Amino acid sequence: MKPLRDEDALVKEIARHFLPSRGRQLRLGIGDDAALWEPRPGFASILTSDWFLEGFHFLREKHPPDSVGWKCLARAASDIAAMGGTPRCFLLNLALPPAATGKWLKRFLRGLRRAAKSVHCVLAGGDTTRSRRILISVTVIGEIREGQGVLRSGARPGDLLYVSGTLGEAEHGLRLLRNSGGTLNRKTVAMRKHLYPEPRVELGRWLAERKLATAMMDVSDGLSSDLPRMCAASGVGALIDPDKLPVLPGVAADSARQLALHGGDDYELLFTVSPGNLASLSAKIRKLRLTQIGKITKDLGVRIIGNDGKLEPLRAAGWDPFRQENK
Amino acid sequence: MKPLRDEDALVKEIARHFLPSRGRQLRLGIGDDAALWEPRPGFASILTSDWFLEGFHFLREKHPPDSVGWKCLARAASDIAAMGGTPRCFLLNLALPPAATGKWLKRFLRGLRRAAKSVHCVLAGGDTTRSRRILISVTVIGEIREGQGVLRSGARPGDLLYVSGTLGEAEHGLRLLRNSGGTLNRKTVAMRKHLYPEPRVELGRWLAERKLATAMMDVSDGLSSDLPRMCAASGVGALIDPDKLPVLPGVAADSARQLALHGGDDYELLFTVSPGNLASLSAKIRKLRLTQIGKITKDLGVRIIGNDGKLEPLRAAGWDPFRQENK
Repeated sequence: MKPLRDEDALVKEIARHFLPSRGRQLRLGIGDDAALWEPRPGFASILTSDWFLEGFHFLREKHPPDSVGWKCLARAASDIAAMGGTPRCFLLNLALPPAATGKWLKRFLRGLRRAAKSVHCVLAGGDTTRSRRILISVTVIGEIREGQGVLRSGARPGDLLYVSGTLGEAEHGLRLLRNSGGTLNRKTVAMRKHLYPEPRVELGRWLAERKLATAMMDVSDGLSSDLPRMCAASGVGALIDPDKLPVLPGVAADSARQLALHGGDDYELLFTVSPGNLASLSAKIRKLRLTQIGKITKDLGVRIIGNDGKLEPLRAAGWDPFRQENK
Repeated sequence: MKPLRDEDALVKEIARHFLPSRGRQLRLGIGDDAALWEPRPGFASILTSDWFLEGFHFLREKHPPDSVGWKCLARAASDIAAMGGTPRCFLLNLALPPAATGKWLKRFLRGLRRAAKSVHCVLAGGDTTRSRRILISVTVIGEIREGQGVLRSGARPGDLLYVSGTLGEAEHGLRLLRNSGGTLNRKTVAMRKHLYPEPRVELGRWLAERKLATAMMDVSDGLSSDLPRMCAASGVGALIDPDKLPVLPGVAADSARQLALHGGDDYELLFTVSPGNLASLSAKIRKLRLTQIGKITKDLGVRIIGNDGKLEPLRAAGWDPFRQENK
């Protein structure tokens, strides 16, 4: 497969994978200076934009191109889910080395298209250029009924702290990938979670519509890094019970706990519920795979119950691009 | 000035330059998973996203950091102007080498803030990470009254072709910059146009509100590359009169013409007007510095009047990231 000859050819190749590039409210998609998006009356738009960079967020020689396509959109859509909103359309900024404009691009676009279908999100536009490494920046526009958006700042002392799914799965998947030889077993749960994470759009919307969550965010950098952000925004602290963490099965207990506390890339929802709303949540807890992992405290800071029953501060040891440098 | 210690510190440094991060319709800015944007009833949102990459769109050793900050937003806002819309808020995705998180960042943010004030656009959010080179992706959200958006696809045979300002100025400025030693004369018009281009927001809006332009786009890659895109979208051709091009003064005629035809980065507006609307436009032509450079034809393709009076095809020789590679 030959590399594409110019930028117009690249734009055509992208558009071909996503036609028709219009949705219910997308009046004008790819091909003009900008896209026209008509929000519904009574709804607010949700705006988010995320990097996905070769050598940093993914490795060209390790990550299948369709996973790169899937994940660059899924992780941005997860920010929409974390407000309780619904993703509607997205802009793709893609910078490619000419060698990646052939087979790599086709497989990338296939993964991206699958993710777009999965979260019902249409391609609205973006920008393409050439670069040494593969650079991706994805902007997702979502919507939510006015007044329903769930912020990070609403947690109150006494609220119970919940998380969806299993924590540490994606980090475990990343380690399997790093240690893998040529063949890749995509069928293990952890590997799938790392390669094709599913943003919790349904759950976020369900919680927002019923006003069950007082605060919400997604766990993208790891619990120990993300929870302090929610606490700081809300002006509260939190206490974690490590025995309650929804850890990976089949991994030594101590490793599983470390993965759950510090592993990134899970894109699960972290949210707080006031005790008065517990009954409404309880009926769905098992079906939605929700786990209460602690509670919100008046005392600032995030603490965890230690082996001896004493409370210890939880050190932020999740993903931080700048801290990595200093390690 | 020390590099910043972690990502949260970087986000704080950015936010500090833009507070309060809210506008008339921006309900929630930096600091949560995403931003909440409330479009006005009767208005459509305009979405656009642009790359601005070190070593490709700018050179760290040549371009002043405040110019990088100004230009990354100005060129994205120009896409909003090209639809006739008004920029409202933007998302900044910024990837930096740790060495650029000190003084470079501060100067960059100062230029970005100036541009944001100039186009009345507030910072809504974005993403930050580390990288080897400085990578920037800017998404601008604008708005326009429903039904007023001017597309590329509306040009009709017989329409007159107009352009704002002077063409080739920015390219000339880039050449001055490339050949400059240590000191930089920012006061020449061409250099200013290259470093601090001003998106034609007022003009675009004026044309859209009065429904004077049948088609419009901005000239970012150069006339010879951009005009064929308008013609293709509209299913028409165009004829350029080279004697009418608004060329740079003080440059040899032939060079000035080549710069006007193929030079990129001008961010002027290229638009078409039906002959019936000429009277409405004429009164403002001098004040708005508009020049008629040719007309739209039924015959496809873009042609130019040659030295001997014969019509010649105009070769697309503007900026194309992939074509550069093959040179």
